[in-house]
Amino acid sequence: MSVATKEILDLNRFDATRTEGFPPELAERVAKRQASLGASSVLFYEQPIDMASAKGAYMYDVSGRKYLDVYNNVPSVGHCHPRVVEAIARQAGELNIHTRYLNRVVEAYTEKLLSKFPEDLSNVVLTCTGSESNDLAMRIARIATGAEGFIVTEAAYHGNTALVTEISPSSLRKRKPAPFVCTIAAPAARDGMSVEANFAASIEQAIAELKSRGIGLAALIIDTIFSSDGIYADPAGFLKAATDVVHRAGGLVIADEVQPGFGRTGGGLWGFERHGVTPDIVTMGKPMGNGFPMGGVVTRPELLKRFCEETGYFNTFGGNPVAAAAGHAVLQVIEDEGLIERSGTVGSHFKRSLQALQAAHPEIGDVRGAGLFIGLDFIAPETAEPDAALASHAINQLKQNGILIGAAGKYGATLKIRPPLCFSSDDADFFTGTLDTILKARRGA
Amino acid sequence: MSVATKEILDLNRFDATRTEGFPPELAERVAKRQASLGASSVLFYEQPIDMASAKGAYMYDVSGRKYLDVYNNVPSVGHCHPRVVEAIARQAGELNIHTRYLNRVVEAYTEKLLSKFPEDLSNVVLTCTGSESNDLAMRIARIATGAEGFIVTEAAYHGNTALVTEISPSSLRKRKPAPFVCTIAAPAARDGMSVEANFAASIEQAIAELKSRGIGLAALIIDTIFSSDGIYADPAGFLKAATDVVHRAGGLVIADEVQPGFGRTGGGLWGFERHGVTPDIVTMGKPMGNGFPMGGVVTRPELLKRFCEETGYFNTFGGNPVAAAAGHAVLQVIEDEGLIERSGTVGSHFKRSLQALQAAHPEIGDVRGAGLFIGLDFIAPETAEPDAALASHAINQLKQNGILIGAAGKYGATLKIRPPLCFSSDDADFFTGTLDTILKARRGA
Repeated sequence: MSVATKEILDLNRFDATRTEGFPPELAERVAKRQASLGASSVLFYEQPIDMASAKGAYMYDVSGRKYLDVYNNVPSVGHCHPRVVEAIARQAGELNIHTRYLNRVVEAYTEKLLSKFPEDLSNVVLTCTGSESNDLAMRIARIATGAEGFIVTEAAYHGNTALVTEISPSSLRKRKPAPFVCTIAAPAARDGMSVEANFAASIEQAIAELKSRGIGLAALIIDTIFSSDGIYADPAGFLKAATDVVHRAGGLVIADEVQPGFGRTGGGLWGFERHGVTPDIVTMGKPMGNGFPMGGVVTRPELLKRFCEETGYFNTFGGNPVAAAAGHAVLQVIEDEGLIERSGTVGSHFKRSLQALQAAHPEIGDVRGAGLFIGLDFIAPETAEPDAALASHAINQLKQNGILIGAAGKYGATLKIRPPLCFSSDDADFFTGTLDTILKARRGA
Repeated sequence: MSVATKEILDLNRFDATRTEGFPPELAERVAKRQASLGASSVLFYEQPIDMASAKGAYMYDVSGRKYLDVYNNVPSVGHCHPRVVEAIARQAGELNIHTRYLNRVVEAYTEKLLSKFPEDLSNVVLTCTGSESNDLAMRIARIATGAEGFIVTEAAYHGNTALVTEISPSSLRKRKPAPFVCTIAAPAARDGMSVEANFAASIEQAIAELKSRGIGLAALIIDTIFSSDGIYADPAGFLKAATDVVHRAGGLVIADEVQPGFGRTGGGLWGFERHGVTPDIVTMGKPMGNGFPMGGVVTRPELLKRFCEETGYFNTFGGNPVAAAAGHAVLQVIEDEGLIERSGTVGSHFKRSLQALQAAHPEIGDVRGAGLFIGLDFIAPETAEPDAALASHAINQLKQNGILIGAAGKYGATLKIRPPLCFSSDDADFFTGTLDTILKARRGA
């Protein structure tokens, strides 16, 4: 793993020792936070924002300053959506308990959620986070296959538990990847091969590499839009050959829908749908409850059964009636407000306008994505090398102009454009126009 | 591990194939639930309850039938406490986002929470569940000590992630414990030794056993009231020698306060306080948000720092402003309603009345506990052997009489008496009187 990769998570991370020039009250707040959250504290931006409230695609700091949110995907149907808030408030006042009793709210939700999946994927385990979901999915895959190995992309992030951290190269700092993990490059056409053929070939190689270590294949686990790797969506369908390769080797395909799921990619509710494949296991998280902590694992009954015979599993908060009410409201809002279609149409407009911007700015190397999940690569025009410093500059300048955005990718040089799905074409134009101005000003400077 | 231990989690687990005799609508509900939750579905009772609402220490099924809750510890300050519900509703409508911005609600909570700990334990990482907390705590301990081994009690349950399941003997079914785990018996006086001396001696032996496997000691991880083992509270202070032994061996002590924490044991906010020891790491979960999914890890800054240097850690939902608002309301309610004192006084009254019941019923082998966490052992009077069948009978009969209770312990023969902290002495008397009637009726039958 390159040094650049290791540092992605630190990009735009605020260094708490550099509070010079801050208003005294802010410096004191940061120092107090550091004293309580300690080394685990991560703050965005050179000077962090004191956030107070949010609504739709907008966030407001304590001084009332408004920011367009082009980054946060947890509040996916819009910050503080009134229907989700109402569902949480109502159910929290009625009943909030584990799933060891029957409950109609929970049943209505699981029924609605499972109706959104291919028929074979008919069992769901509700958890609290995407991390818990991937942790469980990995164990289901190991028990089902009797094998230990996993293949992941080289800058992937799948969560924060001990097991899931092992398959999240972007989280490992001083640590070496575990032998049961084999990493592959993000999807790309290479050496005359199509994206599909090249990606499948890299999986063949990874299976052989695991085998040479004496390790069988449990699963390929992929974020179906490759968020942390830099967002790779096209051509739709390129995961077909990869899926075939994995299945022929006796492994499972785990689709990590924590980031692409719930309508983000525009064509359907799930990222895997764009590829015309059916995963063996699907995991969910972040946008599932629009901020209410919830996640889930959907799979075939026989896979879950084998796992449960081997290991007891119970999740105290998982699938509680408040989570179910929140999750149900999210699915209902996505339907009623046509957010999948909106993600598709606003996303297409947004991508086209950014591609037009690319034509005017040689610092933009590529614009790609699906729906409201777009990656924009910054490069040094002379060398075409990734330019993480420019990404960092743009992120902080956009913030000065009232726009919140972050970075991704192996080199931290890709803008991760991932706004709430209620984002409008006007919002997109404001972003594109502001970035245009920033890039022009930088060239002029 | 005994067969009995393996089956504890299945005790009173509803077998979905036995729906004969159920009203048709209920049988259909259960079948539908089984079809969606699959093998992971766990329902309480021979005939499950269709739960609709709850308030204070009471729960209500869809027909309006009222149950006294003597079991659920997540809604610790009372089911659907209006102040907690109000805090969640207000903050969910205002801002619900990760911790990468500054936010006053989050700061107020972490300050208040940390004020409840010994001064050395000044850093907190907020997570979503007790499982995530223990998973993180184990990694902090491993990195701090450079050792891999853990000591746990033989029927312990510490959570559901891959790593934490390894130190939860009560969750392993067909699986063997991992070599890095050494189990010890629950605390007891034995062979002329005091509880304190015997427990410390068993830890000495476990350290030697790990050493013989070539494994050093990372930590002793204990639920400070030993919930799953059957509730062992007395004499207060017995953890002192154990703590010394662990520290002398270079290991850490992780106090899992998921069950005893937040006032349950009556003498203070944390179970470890009763023992006059300061753990190196404290983990929290279940009652922390009175049902809002949240957990936490509190430790010394240098331990957290070493972990963060090695591995990136970020928890998307952990410490979001809604969790902080819920957690803050919980601490405030505990203070304003004097719930620690109430747990102590009502718990003492409850324990005394159950000890009086013991004097009248030879089937009750022991009554022990602290605050509102009491264990009651059922035995066969002739042999003094644990009687899990009687526990099961009592649990289902109590349900018929409008009382909810569950079992714990190595043999599943211990009633786990663990009501919301708003429980009253009248509630306690109702439980004791009903159990008296059930035991008399059984003897008469």
